[in-house]
Amino acid sequence: MRHKAAYFTTKKSQTAFLLSKSKEMSNKLIILSFVALTFGCLAFAYEPKPLQDFCVSDPNSSVQVNGLVCKDPTQVQADDFFFSGLHLRGNTSNPVGSRVTQVFANQLPGLNTLGISMVRIDYAPWGQNPPHTHPRATEILTVIEGTLEVGFVTSNPNNRFISKVLKKGDVFVFPVGLVHFQRNLGKGYAVAIAALSSQNPGAITIANAVFGANPLIPADILAKAFQVDKSVVDQLQAKF
Amino acid sequence: MRHKAAYFTTKKSQTAFLLSKSKEMSNKLIILSFVALTFGCLAFAYEPKPLQDFCVSDPNSSVQVNGLVCKDPTQVQADDFFFSGLHLRGNTSNPVGSRVTQVFANQLPGLNTLGISMVRIDYAPWGQNPPHTHPRATEILTVIEGTLEVGFVTSNPNNRFISKVLKKGDVFVFPVGLVHFQRNLGKGYAVAIAALSSQNPGAITIANAVFGANPLIPADILAKAFQVDKSVVDQLQAKF
Amino acid sequence: MRHKAAYFTTKKSQTAFLLSKSKEMSNKLIILSFVALTFGCLAFAYEPKPLQDFCVSDPNSSVQVNGLVCKDPTQVQADDFFFSGLHLRGNTSNPVGSRVTQVFANQLPGLNTLGISMVRIDYAPWGQNPPHTHPRATEILTVIEGTLEVGFVTSNPNNRFISKVLKKGDVFVFPVGLVHFQRNLGKGYAVAIAALSSQNPGAITIANAVFGANPLIPADILAKAFQVDKSVVDQLQAKF
Amino acid sequence: MRHKAAYFTTKKSQTAFLLSKSKEMSNKLIILSFVALTFGCLAFAYEPKPLQDFCVSDPNSSVQVNGLVCKDPTQVQADDFFFSGLHLRGNTSNPVGSRVTQVFANQLPGLNTLGISMVRIDYAPWGQNPPHTHPRATEILTVIEGTLEVGFVTSNPNNRFISKVLKKGDVFVFPVGLVHFQRNLGKGYAVAIAALSSQNPGAITIANAVFGANPLIPADILAKAFQVDKSVVDQLQAKF
Amino acid sequence: MRHKAAYFTTKKSQTAFLLSKSKEMSNKLIILSFVALTFGCLAFAYEPKPLQDFCVSDPNSSVQVNGLVCKDPTQVQADDFFFSGLHLRGNTSNPVGSRVTQVFANQLPGLNTLGISMVRIDYAPWGQNPPHTHPRATEILTVIEGTLEVGFVTSNPNNRFISKVLKKGDVFVFPVGLVHFQRNLGKGYAVAIAALSSQNPGAITIANAVFGANPLIPADILAKAFQVDKSVVDQLQAKF
Amino acid sequence: MRHKAAYFTTKKSQTAFLLSKSKEMSNKLIILSFVALTFGCLAFAYEPKPLQDFCVSDPNSSVQVNGLVCKDPTQVQADDFFFSGLHLRGNTSNPVGSRVTQVFANQLPGLNTLGISMVRIDYAPWGQNPPHTHPRATEILTVIEGTLEVGFVTSNPNNRFISKVLKKGDVFVFPVGLVHFQRNLGKGYAVAIAALSSQNPGAITIANAVFGANPLIPADILAKAFQVDKSVVDQLQAKF
Repeated sequence: MRHKAAYFTTKKSQTAFLLSKSKEMSNKLIILSFVALTFGCLAFAYEPKPLQDFCVSDPNSSVQVNGLVCKDPTQVQADDFFFSGLHLRGNTSNPVGSRVTQVFANQLPGLNTLGISMVRIDYAPWGQNPPHTHPRATEILTVIEGTLEVGFVTSNPNNRFISKVLKKGDVFVFPVGLVHFQRNLGKGYAVAIAALSSQNPGAITIANAVFGANPLIPADILAKAFQVDKSVVDQLQAKF
Repeated sequence: MRHKAAYFTTKKSQTAFLLSKSKEMSNKLIILSFVALTFGCLAFAYEPKPLQDFCVSDPNSSVQVNGLVCKDPTQVQADDFFFSGLHLRGNTSNPVGSRVTQVFANQLPGLNTLGISMVRIDYAPWGQNPPHTHPRATEILTVIEGTLEVGFVTSNPNNRFISKVLKKGDVFVFPVGLVHFQRNLGKGYAVAIAALSSQNPGAITIANAVFGANPLIPADILAKAFQVDKSVVDQLQAKF
Repeated sequence: MRHKAAYFTTKKSQTAFLLSKSKEMSNKLIILSFVALTFGCLAFAYEPKPLQDFCVSDPNSSVQVNGLVCKDPTQVQADDFFFSGLHLRGNTSNPVGSRVTQVFANQLPGLNTLGISMVRIDYAPWGQNPPHTHPRATEILTVIEGTLEVGFVTSNPNNRFISKVLKKGDVFVFPVGLVHFQRNLGKGYAVAIAALSSQNPGAITIANAVFGANPLIPADILAKAFQVDKSVVDQLQAKF
Repeated sequence: MRHKAAYFTTKKSQTAFLLSKSKEMSNKLIILSFVALTFGCLAFAYEPKPLQDFCVSDPNSSVQVNGLVCKDPTQVQADDFFFSGLHLRGNTSNPVGSRVTQVFANQLPGLNTLGISMVRIDYAPWGQNPPHTHPRATEILTVIEGTLEVGFVTSNPNNRFISKVLKKGDVFVFPVGLVHFQRNLGKGYAVAIAALSSQNPGAITIANAVFGANPLIPADILAKAFQVDKSVVDQLQAKF
Repeated sequence: MRHKAAYFTTKKSQTAFLLSKSKEMSNKLIILSFVALTFGCLAFAYEPKPLQDFCVSDPNSSVQVNGLVCKDPTQVQADDFFFSGLHLRGNTSNPVGSRVTQVFANQLPGLNTLGISMVRIDYAPWGQNPPHTHPRATEILTVIEGTLEVGFVTSNPNNRFISKVLKKGDVFVFPVGLVHFQRNLGKGYAVAIAALSSQNPGAITIANAVFGANPLIPADILAKAFQVDKSVVDQLQAKF
Repeated sequence: MRHKAAYFTTKKSQTAFLLSKSKEMSNKLIILSFVALTFGCLAFAYEPKPLQDFCVSDPNSSVQVNGLVCKDPTQVQADDFFFSGLHLRGNTSNPVGSRVTQVFANQLPGLNTLGISMVRIDYAPWGQNPPHTHPRATEILTVIEGTLEVGFVTSNPNNRFISKVLKKGDVFVFPVGLVHFQRNLGKGYAVAIAALSSQNPGAITIANAVFGANPLIPADILAKAFQVDKSVVDQLQAKF
């Protein structure tokens, strides 16, 4: 079985896509799970501006628009602006040793139209939030506990790698769309809180999107792109 | 003396306005200080989109634009995307019993053009981040330690008060431009981390902007606006 | 009884929130009414861009989105872009002595998606449009008749008060989100026309949002915020 | 002589382009003048968002950016947000019998980055603000005095003409980019106040842009476009 | 008969307006047809930002919003991001001798929310894409075959005409909202590919919008605007 | 030697970053070159709105802002809106067998502030434009010659691969920020023209950004991310 979203800690999740795909590949299962983790680690800006005080998303509407349809404002309650559980340690028992807990518009309906979101990231010792991009958000991150090595790579043609070791209380920013990662350098657990400049920033874990797409990207394309034998690609694709 | 920004915990601050005003009113000194505190507690969205990977602000430029002028990208270093100290407890020895530590584009130059920022808020027992608005940002907040009573008020004509008690790990959103506050309900200290959907969200502490403007708003205007005797306004203005 | 919106001069109003709240407090009734007045005095910009020539709002749709759902374009008529009555003097017989007549997307359906709106403001002698903010708009105002004292206060930490006396034909701008007001200085009536940079700019009258929220903000919070005895807050809350 | 901007009623104008062109064609002089008139009659939205309380334009800067460079905020005065003279009747002694008085960012420096502007339009009896478009703004207009026939035309392929007769106090909206006009239907003078959803909305008077461009658009192109003999085009070009 | 859109080469067209109008005027039929042609030749930017990976438009929805309602993402197929036929020569047998083939959100549903579109323009010898504006897009164009004379006119008061002769492989940009055109200078056919910075840029062919509106703009208004006898206007209106 | 940008076909290039790095690794040289190729294959939208007719970039200014500083508008010429050479076949003699010729704001100064750009992509037989993302643009592409296999992968957690074979005249859209590629399926050369919804869309070729960053991302991080032995990572890093 292949449960890409298996490690997610989501609430009121309304994921729209078909998730069920059942190839038995336990390695894949493990690795692909961190795809979800990366969802929560970034921040972008300049969403469409709100045109009313709030537009709390309506979980029962069948209409789909850019963003989410709003519920009747007279039915809105304080709980619509609320989410709980960001103090809980995420389960990092997976190959990459990290877990992202998301607070996006799907988890916190009051975020709809407001252009911001938040995540908690847990890291096992030497665990990592592997290289990924956020197609719709910049991310600002602060370390709550532990020591993290973080970095991002600029776009072509320079692909400059800019990195830093962060300790508790340090803050770092990952500009929108750039490849970035975090890794726990310490012996103990590490925790970060990050905010993203979109209500639904999206995340693209490179390893999964490239080697674990569904269906798979033809192996000969990837072999040429990465300048390796097709057998290496086959090996990589077997893991995601 | 009147040092409005006295309690700020800023780094590389480049505040552009004249700050020095010297009337001897120690109460004012104390109260006005929390004005600064509120700077950091919000989040808005939809800034102008970045047109390059990053545009790290140049502290030496004399040119002023919407946002900040960028430094030469070849001179950019990892430290430009970095800020430290968000783990440090802010000094809450002031009348409102709270302190905001800001990480805006002025403190973290790499945030320029990226549409997001972050703050830490410390609350003494029963301390509060008093009612304020953010003219340019929505705010998302999570409680790191303690118990907070939070709330916001919708715009006219309803002015509906939406409030909630938050515990550790809870998350709440304050929509852009609305009056909101947080108060420490517990016996111990409380701490929150919040993100804002602008690189420079701004904050307007109601009490200070209305009763502590510089120069003062004419008292008879405020007396009529708040339906009180001018003597009450005089009393209020003496404190801010 | 408490009719917050009692003095509104609206047409085709589609206010979405619950308005009915019935505490017998005639002072409140009077004061709160000017809340509505402030709705119309500002202007902000950068709404989401229109994606068609027009998107006239559909008053019969049950679907709620950011902004308003459009009616069938083939059913659109010239009257959808039209509003009448801005030459009529508003009733200023209320405690603040002013009245705002709004022309927002709710009153003029053709404004939907177009990012602008207009208001007329009437002022009795010494009447005022009390201190308020617009969470989603900048305002540009011109004096049609009379003399107005106008001003706005910058955000923290300076809270600089910038003010000016305006005569007939003068124009002034109130930047988005900042606290501002107008007061009739003359012996006669005064009239202004203002435009706002949103189809639904919103308005937050400070006195009402802070002391007249529904339900009330706890008095001890406000006492600390404004550095006054709780009895003063009780007195203020009784009036809004 | 040809003074395209001859009838403008601008203040602190900082027009950047070369204006001086001296062909002796008095008809041209007269007609082209109304080009300027149309500058002020519209309104668009969704400018880039401001990133500070204000960014008052600096008339002395040699640096040119999207919008205008700001002056030092400590040097900003109330007059920077102020413009006077909108009560004055514009001179309508020109072929189209109308005059637009603009209050854009070039005339009111405080409008820079704020996404809104205002105009006054005067109409002699049967005078018109001839068909034009605003490339960067929607316009909302209210009649202060007189009776106006107004209209706009939708885009291809329908080119539907939507029109209305407006009296004092009526309001109408012209969506961004669409061809529109106003004409004074009455025996007396007419006056309108309009707001535009850009700090610098631009205006393109059709007759002038098409038949009075500088240099002229080749006549055979226009002859084919308008399906007329080249001699008719020559005749039209002689007038603008 | 009058078929304004007669020459369009559209696919999956969902034009919302009433098209059928039946006056017998064959000249009109021919000329008005190029109105459609101009739809496809430009490009604008800064649409509302997407809030999900994609929002493929749903042709079956009755709900109308800014842009288009999305279909269920689980039902999305590769064909939703696909359009075919841009290699086919458009029929230029019409008075202006050109044809625009559009690929907008109505023709390519996957473009919804993504802020870009494309067109192909065919030109018979000496054919032209007549003067027009795009109310919601900038256009970038490259010549695939032949030689084109292109130009645009700046806004008031200068109305500067900026033009260039383009050969195969040349690229030119037409800024949003400005009047522009292209004409085939060569003996053979010409072809261009252009992109527009909106999913639905709109086009306003000047001749058609001004002289061929439906219903017609009163002739005396146009006579004064263009400084010609009403008989000339009658003649022009008879052709569109 | 390592010349990342070696194969670029740029004009008036003003690349700001340090390009010169001289390690002797000819494989790297070859592979890294296609990084540049990917620069031109996409399209994004919703840039900041222009605030004037145009803002042609000034190549001589030392001031750096979001986007580019404008030159004096009176000095602007038709050539500022012009670029030539998009008909020329790009040199595809490199490991990936493709070449991107860019027309961005750096190559075509008139594009500054206008939110769109264009590229030509050449593909040798079986050449590919390898998997990459555009951090700031959606891309719309049409095939001019040959047959292309194209595809993109949705974000986490589904990573759905959506692909299509395109022939001459087909059009496809790649949503902003998503990983995508094109490959020439045919025996002959292939050519595409694409447009991007930003004046400076950026491109991140996955293989180069991940395995060819400068300095290199630590190999053990990548080994864990891609679930391979460090030796495989070393092998990959040697090639980029």
